[in-house]
Amino acid sequence: MRDVAIIGVGQTKFGRTDKTCFELFAEAAHQAMEDAGVTPKEIEGLWIGNCLGSHYEGVANIAPHLAWEIGAKTVPAFRLEGACTSATYAFILGWNAVASGLFDIVMVGGTERTLIAGTPYATRTFAMGDELYASNTGSTFPGVFASAATMYAKKYDIPIEKLREMMAHVSIKNHAHAARNPKAQFYKKYGDLKVEDVLSARMIAWPLTLLDCCPFTDGASAAILCSADIARRYTDEPIYVLGVGAASGGGLSRHEEYIKAISRIQSSRRALKMAGLSPDDIQVLMAHDCFTIAEILIYEQIGFFDWGKGAEAAAEGQTDIGGRIPVNPDGGLMGKGHPVGATGVAQVYSLVKQLRGEEVKGNQVTPVPEIGMTDNLGGTFASLGHIVLGRSKRRR
Amino acid sequence: MRDVAIIGVGQTKFGRTDKTCFELFAEAAHQAMEDAGVTPKEIEGLWIGNCLGSHYEGVANIAPHLAWEIGAKTVPAFRLEGACTSATYAFILGWNAVASGLFDIVMVGGTERTLIAGTPYATRTFAMGDELYASNTGSTFPGVFASAATMYAKKYDIPIEKLREMMAHVSIKNHAHAARNPKAQFYKKYGDLKVEDVLSARMIAWPLTLLDCCPFTDGASAAILCSADIARRYTDEPIYVLGVGAASGGGLSRHEEYIKAISRIQSSRRALKMAGLSPDDIQVLMAHDCFTIAEILIYEQIGFFDWGKGAEAAAEGQTDIGGRIPVNPDGGLMGKGHPVGATGVAQVYSLVKQLRGEEVKGNQVTPVPEIGMTDNLGGTFASLGHIVLGRSKRRR
Repeated sequence: MRDVAIIGVGQTKFGRTDKTCFELFAEAAHQAMEDAGVTPKEIEGLWIGNCLGSHYEGVANIAPHLAWEIGAKTVPAFRLEGACTSATYAFILGWNAVASGLFDIVMVGGTERTLIAGTPYATRTFAMGDELYASNTGSTFPGVFASAATMYAKKYDIPIEKLREMMAHVSIKNHAHAARNPKAQFYKKYGDLKVEDVLSARMIAWPLTLLDCCPFTDGASAAILCSADIARRYTDEPIYVLGVGAASGGGLSRHEEYIKAISRIQSSRRALKMAGLSPDDIQVLMAHDCFTIAEILIYEQIGFFDWGKGAEAAAEGQTDIGGRIPVNPDGGLMGKGHPVGATGVAQVYSLVKQLRGEEVKGNQVTPVPEIGMTDNLGGTFASLGHIVLGRSKRRR
Repeated sequence: MRDVAIIGVGQTKFGRTDKTCFELFAEAAHQAMEDAGVTPKEIEGLWIGNCLGSHYEGVANIAPHLAWEIGAKTVPAFRLEGACTSATYAFILGWNAVASGLFDIVMVGGTERTLIAGTPYATRTFAMGDELYASNTGSTFPGVFASAATMYAKKYDIPIEKLREMMAHVSIKNHAHAARNPKAQFYKKYGDLKVEDVLSARMIAWPLTLLDCCPFTDGASAAILCSADIARRYTDEPIYVLGVGAASGGGLSRHEEYIKAISRIQSSRRALKMAGLSPDDIQVLMAHDCFTIAEILIYEQIGFFDWGKGAEAAAEGQTDIGGRIPVNPDGGLMGKGHPVGATGVAQVYSLVKQLRGEEVKGNQVTPVPEIGMTDNLGGTFASLGHIVLGRSKRRR
């Protein structure tokens, strides 16, 4: 397969909006085309992540409409729905088309309105992730991750109040990054949280408070991928796709445990194997921090820290900017926001900015990282996706 | 890119069922694995078409659950939603993964329950295809194709009652094929319709009666694709993928006209170009006959007959088995049934049976065809997909 490069990225300001999914995507797509210096007529195919459009806006089959909306008209256009992983999967399959030689230039992205009916309705929708086998347990995502936190505390013999304090550091870190990020939902908001603020916030699902949880968000993201051979026609700073990986988990009822979710372990290993790299080579990570405990599990499941050592690593600042592995310097889902089907390529947007050294002051990892990774999760560890990007091509 | 072969296919009996989407897909998938002599552990990835699951059964992110359901567990699993084209798009992207060398053996397919809430609800859902720009016109799919019929009559100066008689031949033909097909929704039902039966059936959207329309259907389909290099380890009769194509139309509000829909013209040309073939090389066609007039438009848009000559061709029997180009010898959507997100790979199922000479007596095209094509349409000419299959590899 051919090497593939990212030559342009775009992302809307995240938060509540009255724009439609079409308008949101057009905004991100045109940013990406302008960034790349690519016209709509050069785009040969479109891969779109979208989760809730058919529920919320009544737009089934959104992809071809978006192709026309952005001026790419009759190109093949595919909608991927993998819950929160939707856009990561759009990225992976768009990458496959370019890597295979089927197309030279494609667009990938996602668009989502989650807040049309408000957070309670969105939470209800997400409780349906696996209605046939799981929803009848009454579980919602806050409930699932609350269980993960108590399991973690028990497994590693950490007093739950101690774990809550360690988890709070994830919230403080990601909200501080978001406060500096003009595209974040919580820009200029929770920039100076204290542990006590997180612990005393409204309880959502014990032991998780509101500040342990990411918000629902409206937004869109886009990236333009092309064959590495032609990337320098468009940009002096192509960012290369070094590896991609995906894996499936079996839903709530089939997990032996969440703490060592096999789906993330396999997906991240697959992406790193394709890249010929190990976790130690990753210099910055955009991770699916839907809850504070979720980010801690990611550290361990990808292999940045030993089993049971993730919470401690967070509390010690090892995942801050300047730490051993900076995680979510854009604010993550928790601070930048989580527009479900658009999140995967929004992570790519932030990672490309980091690798180009274009991130805002205070959030840029220095020295500018050579290699970074995105981690995305859909459902109850059901759909995992990982993307490894670098400033140089893959080593062969 | 590598040549890709189909080594196994499966399809449930179409019709109303109480089985879940999971159970339906497992049935089709296990048929396909048995047909191929492949075990679940050999499957490296899964591409699933599903349109209504998140609306109807509350199963968002269905793909990873299906992977576990069939025993393929942690493989990457992707859900494609492109309305009626969903499974064709699953096929195309699964093909891309094998053609590129990413995987050697994958499964593609689709699963759908449309009848949970009944046909009126399904029709309402489908009126939402493009709610932002189109649903406010009050149009439903029967209405769109009724308009297409009257446009066709006007454009080609055919008296509408004469056109209705010519359209009736499509209904008679496809229902007759379905009556012989044990997997069809209308097996042993409308096997001997007369023109008068079609004309006098309940009026749905003038000039289309109930017998001009396909039904909604529950069902699932699956196919196993592998690198052509290893296909003969599994079967003596691999069927080769000669070409695939896709194209987008812009929804109801952006079409200049339906009669010469640019999306189908481009999609079919792309598939034929990849195969190095012309319409004259196609010996059997599985077409998206959602309405009788829809099948007639297909004849002309792909290029089997001149503009304005499709209706006449149907009436003359040129698209019957034994005619110039047999269309829908399995009964088509109209007689075999239309489980929306599963239809595309159900067309592949029937085409593979034809190319292997395994179709039921009366429906088998003779001599056994060398090359055939599937045609699939999603939305208002919004998503088109074409697949060209053959008994021999692509000519280079």
